[in-house]
Amino acid sequence: MFKERGVDVGEIARIVFELQRPHMPGLRLEQCMASVLKVIGKREAQHAILTGIALDMLAERNALPEPLNSIVRRDEPLYGVDEILALAVTNIYGSIGLTSFGYLDKMKLGVIGRLNNKNGDRVNTFLDDLVAGIAAAAAARIAHGGEEAEEVDGWPQAASG
Amino acid sequence: MFKERGVDVGEIARIVFELQRPHMPGLRLEQCMASVLKVIGKREAQHAILTGIALDMLAERNALPEPLNSIVRRDEPLYGVDEILALAVTNIYGSIGLTSFGYLDKMKLGVIGRLNNKNGDRVNTFLDDLVAGIAAAAAARIAHGGEEAEEVDGWPQAASG
Amino acid sequence: MFKERGVDVGEIARIVFELQRPHMPGLRLEQCMASVLKVIGKREAQHAILTGIALDMLAERNALPEPLNSIVRRDEPLYGVDEILALAVTNIYGSIGLTSFGYLDKMKLGVIGRLNNKNGDRVNTFLDDLVAGIAAAAAARIAHGGEEAEEVDGWPQAASG
Amino acid sequence: MFKERGVDVGEIARIVFELQRPHMPGLRLEQCMASVLKVIGKREAQHAILTGIALDMLAERNALPEPLNSIVRRDEPLYGVDEILALAVTNIYGSIGLTSFGYLDKMKLGVIGRLNNKNGDRVNTFLDDLVAGIAAAAAARIAHGGEEAEEVDGWPQAASG
Repeated sequence: MFKERGVDVGEIARIVFELQRPHMPGLRLEQCMASVLKVIGKREAQHAILTGIALDMLAERNALPEPLNSIVRRDEPLYGVDEILALAVTNIYGSIGLTSFGYLDKMKLGVIGRLNNKNGDRVNTFLDDLVAGIAAAAAARIAHGGEEAEEVDGWPQAASG
Repeated sequence: MFKERGVDVGEIARIVFELQRPHMPGLRLEQCMASVLKVIGKREAQHAILTGIALDMLAERNALPEPLNSIVRRDEPLYGVDEILALAVTNIYGSIGLTSFGYLDKMKLGVIGRLNNKNGDRVNTFLDDLVAGIAAAAAARIAHGGEEAEEVDGWPQAASG
Repeated sequence: MFKERGVDVGEIARIVFELQRPHMPGLRLEQCMASVLKVIGKREAQHAILTGIALDMLAERNALPEPLNSIVRRDEPLYGVDEILALAVTNIYGSIGLTSFGYLDKMKLGVIGRLNNKNGDRVNTFLDDLVAGIAAAAAARIAHGGEEAEEVDGWPQAASG
Repeated sequence: MFKERGVDVGEIARIVFELQRPHMPGLRLEQCMASVLKVIGKREAQHAILTGIALDMLAERNALPEPLNSIVRRDEPLYGVDEILALAVTNIYGSIGLTSFGYLDKMKLGVIGRLNNKNGDRVNTFLDDLVAGIAAAAAARIAHGGEEAEEVDGWPQAASG
């Protein structure tokens, strides 16, 4: 679904790497990739992603009722529902991811910036925030996992591979 | 929009009245009505309501992509996005409304119970939670307003009547 | 720490059992106990619990600065910080626990009701909400685990017993 | 209380100005000041501020129970309760403030950076996040107020003064 919407999961892993590297000099890109895959495997995340991308796609085809369709199409800054869905993803790994989410949402690093540039008929109102939410969650997961071993659902084994 | 979906704003006011009456013996139904109208007049609330009702309506017409359409149609208990949107409404008046939201969501008081009963082709997955969220927010607003006068946007004049 | 504050972990498990039993006829008390232990083993939960209980204890000894000390001592209904900390615990297992939290906070089931009864010099302003938050999280964890096998940190093996 | 902890409200207004100016060329510093005062006048915000500053002060005097005292003293990055309290303030003006909060928390603009530098025996674990939360809320309030006039509790009149 991400691929279809023009997002490569490796690009999300790269953002996680940039976020977390300063705090963990030994971090490897594969660990970030594994963490992103774990986040998007969570049901809570999948529900938010499915819903957000559906709203983007429907707005693209002008299939949402008005005034919602116009609000989503122009990524109205006071809309807020896109941030709410993305935060539901970030929250899966606790409050420490919220800081990264806000930072990513503002700085538009990597793929997030590309998605945010309105081009043609593409609507990515939800997608750019979801990507930021996933990256922030994956970074928080690594931050927790580094110290917590068994605690965070099996991460360390996978990470050390 | 509520009317079209089978919800009368007076029914929401009645829930607020039942919630808040035990704590405020002098409370009148009109105050609850005024508080509900103030809540649904807030932009943050309107965006959540527009989005949730759109998703209900699209699911009703089988116009959401799968598997989302089926998840929304059967009000899958682990979906969670419906609660997230409703809580965004409740949060407008702070954390004290969260308790009432959970209580309403569980007890299905009044119109919430009616909406929650799947009947025919109607899909109210988002609507029943949104009504609970609005009622909880309106009750929290009254709780704050009773003591806080000027603080909560102009409510007290109405309350002191 | 719970024991010292008069809470037996088994009492929390009993609340989880009452919450979740109607949805899972085969549920056993030991599963609820295991889920409670998993929740209170999470760092996010521990930080909220340590902070809340410290605030209760300091208020008990009148060691908080005023006006905070009085607000916490009388469990001022508009305080809100107690609910916020408890919700941070509930959120660990996603939004579906929020409903149970609100219900427990209102109905004061079991030990929560006992804690909430102000008696003598005991201050349990944070503790009763934290217990509700833990119970709601543990119930949500079971709800997720029933279907999600590997996903929720290793729970299912225990659940399938 | 802020003054006593070394924070001037004008410094918070300056952060709001830097945040919001790019979006509103005509914005004046006094409007930011008025918005900050409105935010810290809200009960929900005051409760979070009182609680957070009390925890900082108690940690400074080593008056919290261990291990909490050490966690707060060294501003342990995985603690999370400081962010949770700050977000309760930001949330007062809806989800759009969350982005600014994360950005401020990461970039440590102005007074936030100064507070965050551990110096001597000062503990500002909660205070730096609270300042970021207040600034983000005040900026969100201005963003809403610019279009919403009457809606956001009387802001425009005060702002135009």
